[in-house]
Amino acid sequence: MRFTNLFIPTLREDPAEAEVISHILMVRAGLIRKLAAGIYSYLPLGLRVLRKVENIIRQEMNRAGAQEILMPAAQPAELWRESGRWDKYGPELWRIKDRHNHDYCLAPTHEEVVTDIIRREIRSYRDLPFNLYQVQTKFRDEIRPRFGLMRGREFIMKDAYSFDRDDAGADVSYRAMYEAYRRIFARCGLKFSAVEADTGAIGGSFSHEFMVLAETGEEAVVSCPACGYAANTEKAEIRPLDQTIPDQGAVLTRILTPEVRTIAQLSSFLGVSPREIVKTIIYKTDDAPVAVLVRGDHEVNAIKLKNVLGGSEADLADPDLIQELTGAPVGFSGPVGLKVKILADQALLAMSRLVTGANERDYHLIGVVPGRDFSPEGYYDLRLAQPGDPCPRCQAGLQLTRGIEVGHTFKLGTKYSEPMQATYLDEQGRDRPIVMGCYGIGVGRTAAAAIEQNHDAEGIIWPVPLAPFEAVVLPLQVQDEAVRDAAEKLYNSLLNQGVETLLDDRDERPGIKFKDADLIGFPFRLAVSRKTLAQNKVEFKERRDAETRLFDLAEAPILVRERRDSLLIRLD
Amino acid sequence: MRFTNLFIPTLREDPAEAEVISHILMVRAGLIRKLAAGIYSYLPLGLRVLRKVENIIRQEMNRAGAQEILMPAAQPAELWRESGRWDKYGPELWRIKDRHNHDYCLAPTHEEVVTDIIRREIRSYRDLPFNLYQVQTKFRDEIRPRFGLMRGREFIMKDAYSFDRDDAGADVSYRAMYEAYRRIFARCGLKFSAVEADTGAIGGSFSHEFMVLAETGEEAVVSCPACGYAANTEKAEIRPLDQTIPDQGAVLTRILTPEVRTIAQLSSFLGVSPREIVKTIIYKTDDAPVAVLVRGDHEVNAIKLKNVLGGSEADLADPDLIQELTGAPVGFSGPVGLKVKILADQALLAMSRLVTGANERDYHLIGVVPGRDFSPEGYYDLRLAQPGDPCPRCQAGLQLTRGIEVGHTFKLGTKYSEPMQATYLDEQGRDRPIVMGCYGIGVGRTAAAAIEQNHDAEGIIWPVPLAPFEAVVLPLQVQDEAVRDAAEKLYNSLLNQGVETLLDDRDERPGIKFKDADLIGFPFRLAVSRKTLAQNKVEFKERRDAETRLFDLAEAPILVRERRDSLLIRLD
Repeated sequence: MRFTNLFIPTLREDPAEAEVISHILMVRAGLIRKLAAGIYSYLPLGLRVLRKVENIIRQEMNRAGAQEILMPAAQPAELWRESGRWDKYGPELWRIKDRHNHDYCLAPTHEEVVTDIIRREIRSYRDLPFNLYQVQTKFRDEIRPRFGLMRGREFIMKDAYSFDRDDAGADVSYRAMYEAYRRIFARCGLKFSAVEADTGAIGGSFSHEFMVLAETGEEAVVSCPACGYAANTEKAEIRPLDQTIPDQGAVLTRILTPEVRTIAQLSSFLGVSPREIVKTIIYKTDDAPVAVLVRGDHEVNAIKLKNVLGGSEADLADPDLIQELTGAPVGFSGPVGLKVKILADQALLAMSRLVTGANERDYHLIGVVPGRDFSPEGYYDLRLAQPGDPCPRCQAGLQLTRGIEVGHTFKLGTKYSEPMQATYLDEQGRDRPIVMGCYGIGVGRTAAAAIEQNHDAEGIIWPVPLAPFEAVVLPLQVQDEAVRDAAEKLYNSLLNQGVETLLDDRDERPGIKFKDADLIGFPFRLAVSRKTLAQNKVEFKERRDAETRLFDLAEAPILVRERRDSLLIRLD
Repeated sequence: MRFTNLFIPTLREDPAEAEVISHILMVRAGLIRKLAAGIYSYLPLGLRVLRKVENIIRQEMNRAGAQEILMPAAQPAELWRESGRWDKYGPELWRIKDRHNHDYCLAPTHEEVVTDIIRREIRSYRDLPFNLYQVQTKFRDEIRPRFGLMRGREFIMKDAYSFDRDDAGADVSYRAMYEAYRRIFARCGLKFSAVEADTGAIGGSFSHEFMVLAETGEEAVVSCPACGYAANTEKAEIRPLDQTIPDQGAVLTRILTPEVRTIAQLSSFLGVSPREIVKTIIYKTDDAPVAVLVRGDHEVNAIKLKNVLGGSEADLADPDLIQELTGAPVGFSGPVGLKVKILADQALLAMSRLVTGANERDYHLIGVVPGRDFSPEGYYDLRLAQPGDPCPRCQAGLQLTRGIEVGHTFKLGTKYSEPMQATYLDEQGRDRPIVMGCYGIGVGRTAAAAIEQNHDAEGIIWPVPLAPFEAVVLPLQVQDEAVRDAAEKLYNSLLNQGVETLLDDRDERPGIKFKDADLIGFPFRLAVSRKTLAQNKVEFKERRDAETRLFDLAEAPILVRERRDSLLIRLD
């Protein structure tokens, strides 16, 4: 393809709308353009990247025996009422009406529709198992869409759904998808981690998140360098510490701590470690407020708290409610004398006496003894994992990394098949619910995550499998017939070698061509100039490397093809 | 692929919801399933057909130099207000709101968005011309969605948009798309016609419809066997007849015609030809009602009438309004003494005296002379073309055929670029509006039209280029190891020959396998049984033919490949 035949509107300046590097670079490199908040058009180069991700996904889904179908975006509310999600799903579910005033939604996920399709067709255990997938446009009416393709309102996903006779079968199907996902992200050329995750709003019994590792990632992941355990910090189980005996001899003492509101301030004021202090955090729930106690150096895990609360939402109490419940402003809450239900993190079982707020402005308590001075309703695993925490499997110290969630696998069980009566007759003629799994990959988000992981100050550094073109040929003086002809010949030879090549045939200065090539991030750059031509050479540079090399013009296509082949990820 | 690994829920009975044969067969053959009115899921075989249509379209669009992009479905109202279409478009425009109560629509077409993209990037005449296209899901909130994929509310379209410096350039771009469309439908293996068409709601200066010819088609097309002229009956120009001189000697006479309301009844009652009678039809318009006069054997063309009315909608008057305006019930209207504006079809200029209604129950008039007894505001081309009408180009008799509109090309001119200020600087530095064209193909509709054109009582007869699989291998006794092995071997040999083959490995009776093969419509069927195997043969049948032939098992794959190649349409 020739640059002059392609619509590639590159920009020199960062777009004002963009906050993260992948968004900035996708706009600047002419891959995407914004239509509205969270809604983007893919321009020719952006679509090429998208198709590369899609093709890898399709190949691996087909290889795993899944069958491609295509389901609609506009879905009648009735089906969502059957599953119970019409009411449960928040305002992210984009609800619309048709001209007859009937309720529809623009689907963010397709459990209802796929369950409706198969419940009409599946009769017998002989029809199972199977797996249906699609690559399709989804909608989610985010309150604050942002980060370009990372969190959009209209976006492309691959979603797959497995149908099995029983739990054991569903585990086999789940494992097949888990392996397919590992192959997909490996073949995309990405560093990633598959981590245990919470099942969230989709529900079901267990789940993994596939994270592309990048410092800029929104998600925190802990992983064990010893045994390979990895989990979202929200999901990561905490290994209980050895319990200790409360220090019944400690003297409960009220200390004046003027304007000391944070753990850091208190630690410094009292000269004690944050590990000796307990934070008391008040939450509103669907029922009465609760107080959650965690150690000063720990953070509450909202997902675990919600699970302990039996699924109730828990929101931080506002200052008025804190004043009302504790009699003191924010920063001085404590469990002693508090008239709300108290949930304590299990780490408190290893503390013989505590430092807490006094429920009085400018006062804290020391020598607080659990059981003597206050009684929590129970001790639970309520905190986020941290680096250095012992691995729940092998006790080695966990490491913290950051990542971008690009895929998610869920074992659903019968969460949808039971309410929607998707059943089959087993060998004994009994009606049994189909056991399901669901499996998603954000296609555009994978492309964006690849950029978060692979970029520098000049622009994108595409992994070869995702690059819009693998190589770019730059004739540096297109007015010079010899340069132009040599570049054309090189371009055609590269195409003949099966290397996807773009010829930058624009009549532009070399600086512009180099800058655009770096910005767009083609893995291989081949610059032809009067100077290189005098030696019958071409200047070769890999986007990822600093140095350039001179290749013989005649040999360059084969060398590039070989290098490309060595970087394309092939799996058995 | 193996039948047992594919989700192909075929049905023996016609679905109640389906009215047309393509819809019935797509549901019965397991290609699609209905989710809601006008909203369908594509199952594995249906999606394969869709992808075949898409791939042919992509290849030909790319060949014509168009560039693929992908634009969103959810679009902010602001853009549609800029073009003026937010108000002009009827309730087919599916209007929605987001969580912030902002107006959006689900786009039925993308002129606004594509114009918005290019107006931000195109600066100079050097950036033009170019053509952007997408294959994307569109929405249209039809009042009465029907006919399966023919008239859906959510459907897949290829839409392309060309951008040129001037009218002459736009004509070149239009011609390139016209040729690409001819190639696309030819390569799909369809009999089609490219006809002149009205520009309708999209607007612009000229347009063609691409019709797949089928007796069941909704659209009527006239074409000239002599010169190749073809047009939608709505668009087809009528060649004026030679004028005659009104017969001033005719005696205007009121005739009792009890209960005679139709042309057929009147013709028979009076013993005159319908060609001597004039129909008077009352329309409501945006302004005052009008009466339209056409010859008894002609029909009013609503599109031409609307154009004569300067774009005003014209709806048939209801009986109450007819009674009020004419003083008589439906069936007795006439121009004499009528107090509304009268528009006459040009055919009346060739009639020296007329038979009309008398504006009185049970009475008609004979000897009516235009100019003497009533005065039309003017004579216009107001009727639908009919078979036998002289060709407007060469005077040969037009033929009537029926078709299904699968593609539409429009030369838009500056209809969108002017209000949306999509301009470029020409060689002289003047700001000029970009000249546009737009070009659509209904992807699902093309698949459905292929079925309307190619089916019989047993099912679909796919043209080879669109078939979900080109060949099906039927082992008729899968329990018999020899039969099963021979079928497996044949299946693998066909795959090695590059023939897309499905192996019906189900443990089903031969009758079921034959029925499903005919229903789904694979072009080539190869049945292996104990009987054929005894002769080392396989029974070959083309879906389109009645007879079967025996092929040597070893030769069959090559023979099938050769036959397939001869039926695949290749264009230079």
